[in-house]
Amino acid sequence: MAMLSGDDEERELSEFELIELFTVRPPDPERVRVGIGDDAAVVETLGRAVTSTDTAVEGVHFRREWSTAGQIGSKAVGAALSDLAAMGAGEDGIDVFVSLGAPRDTDTRFLRGIAAGVAETAGRHGATLTGGDTVSSPSLFLTVTVTAHVADGTPLVTRSGARPGDLVAVTGTLGAALAGLWLLENPGLPVSPELPAGVRRELITRQLDAEPRITAGAALARAGASAMIDLSDGLIADLGHIARRSSSPDEPVRIRVDAERLPSAPGVEAVARATGVDPLTPALTGGEEYELAVVLPAVTRPGATEALSAAGISLTVIGEVERGRPDGETPVRVLLRGEPIDPGRGGFDHFA
Amino acid sequence: MAMLSGDDEERELSEFELIELFTVRPPDPERVRVGIGDDAAVVETLGRAVTSTDTAVEGVHFRREWSTAGQIGSKAVGAALSDLAAMGAGEDGIDVFVSLGAPRDTDTRFLRGIAAGVAETAGRHGATLTGGDTVSSPSLFLTVTVTAHVADGTPLVTRSGARPGDLVAVTGTLGAALAGLWLLENPGLPVSPELPAGVRRELITRQLDAEPRITAGAALARAGASAMIDLSDGLIADLGHIARRSSSPDEPVRIRVDAERLPSAPGVEAVARATGVDPLTPALTGGEEYELAVVLPAVTRPGATEALSAAGISLTVIGEVERGRPDGETPVRVLLRGEPIDPGRGGFDHFA
Repeated sequence: MAMLSGDDEERELSEFELIELFTVRPPDPERVRVGIGDDAAVVETLGRAVTSTDTAVEGVHFRREWSTAGQIGSKAVGAALSDLAAMGAGEDGIDVFVSLGAPRDTDTRFLRGIAAGVAETAGRHGATLTGGDTVSSPSLFLTVTVTAHVADGTPLVTRSGARPGDLVAVTGTLGAALAGLWLLENPGLPVSPELPAGVRRELITRQLDAEPRITAGAALARAGASAMIDLSDGLIADLGHIARRSSSPDEPVRIRVDAERLPSAPGVEAVARATGVDPLTPALTGGEEYELAVVLPAVTRPGATEALSAAGISLTVIGEVERGRPDGETPVRVLLRGEPIDPGRGGFDHFA
Repeated sequence: MAMLSGDDEERELSEFELIELFTVRPPDPERVRVGIGDDAAVVETLGRAVTSTDTAVEGVHFRREWSTAGQIGSKAVGAALSDLAAMGAGEDGIDVFVSLGAPRDTDTRFLRGIAAGVAETAGRHGATLTGGDTVSSPSLFLTVTVTAHVADGTPLVTRSGARPGDLVAVTGTLGAALAGLWLLENPGLPVSPELPAGVRRELITRQLDAEPRITAGAALARAGASAMIDLSDGLIADLGHIARRSSSPDEPVRIRVDAERLPSAPGVEAVARATGVDPLTPALTGGEEYELAVVLPAVTRPGATEALSAAGISLTVIGEVERGRPDGETPVRVLLRGEPIDPGRGGFDHFA
């Protein structure tokens, strides 16, 4: 869109130059018939298009004093790709469209760094920067729209297929992103026992980066997952999305989480204790994990575990889908060794 | 993407509520298999996907004191759809993805107004709000990504097909958006002869709205257009995009515009004179017209004119594609009754 003031054209960020920053690797001409530089991109499709969009705003979703430019670009793309992973999509070609808003006086090296992060993470996941635009804006933001092309018949997994008796599992480990945020907010936090430098670094990286589980998501879809979501709002909130979307008036469902089974990442419980909150809080409520929570019919468990193991990714069963939900009850209940606990904001009253 | 601060969740705009605002009309379930509310949308494709993205930022692309909320939403969608029109795409189903960034304290009625504008304009052009997200942001912005689904074999028109001897034409009338901007910036502008109220209103509406030429674009593609672009940067700049993209080292092309043929909208020349600039400036340099500039082999002209006439849209030939471009010369040259003029910023030296 052109700017308001007709004779102020040079104040617009140079669209051509910035879009060039993003075209680090040219797309496959057999698939992308028309790429960046025309009115629109033209792409050969495979039957179904799976699309998600995600926005990162400076000061709200990232801070320049914490993230490198590359991390800002990488995480914005990674978070968007994570939504495709949660559908089981993304193995057969992904188009990425980036809209970048930035103040006119933003350092070009910084913008190049964002572009490099976008390109690196997109490329690592077989995704192509197919289009985008750049605008001047009072605040820095990136909107990333991703489309995975899948053939008809490719298994896709929504949030709405959870059935009573299904198992609930998560990939990888939990709580690292929130623990990493606490370490960034309070670098002198007296964590006891002291964290090894590698563990501390890993927790912070998990906050500043997003590694989408595309291979794992597709493997879980093929293995027969009945529902899936990526952990962006926090485990309890995201399992709540599954429970609500999977409920019908005839068959409401809820999800039981057995807290003692949660695979907290190394260092997470120590950082939580030092912060003064319950050690299970990061795993239960921390956002931006970008791990997958998956609902599996019990018979599919061995195949799913094996498929992920082959990809070097752990799968931990943490609970089960239950029939029914009494009025007024939350869609997710958390038990610790069989006793209900309250995964309230900032910790559990049970432990307070 | 979740917010930086883990325990600050209620400061995020309620994604669910805002996305609901945009779901005014449910999508066709035969085409949109999974819509808003899951990790990603799943859409049946037709062979090719034509995608463009466009961002509007408050204070840069719109001002709340000039535009209603509905106009802000409508224009953001209209501008994105205009890029599809310029490809000849959009008659067989369009998906719209909207990312809305807004300060946390933004009035909900205002956001509802934006959503209503989005939904109304999308619906009028057969487009469906298929996905999106809402985030809190220091500044208000909308990123709109649109995908038109077209069958293999549907004629699509790029910027790069202009050949020497082809005619250059525009739909509708020109200059209204810039003249409307001047009227908004200077409501007391002493235009002589005084503009009829209806003409003044129309000029301002052309600045604050964007009416994408989807039907005309598809008709021109079917009629055999060799290149096309929507007028968003201004006629000279946009024809320059066509000339550059259509040139090869072996066959550079340039475009000649005959200024006396330009179809300035009623009132435009009077507003330009009152503003102290050349009367042809708005037609030659004004942005955000959202008319189409089209390049046509001469034999296709009668069919193209007839097809547009059937849709009630005028088509005016304004120039021709020429062979060759001497070093250092601009890709677009403007003649007035055969004499070269300089369509410089803010008017022509020739007339100064």
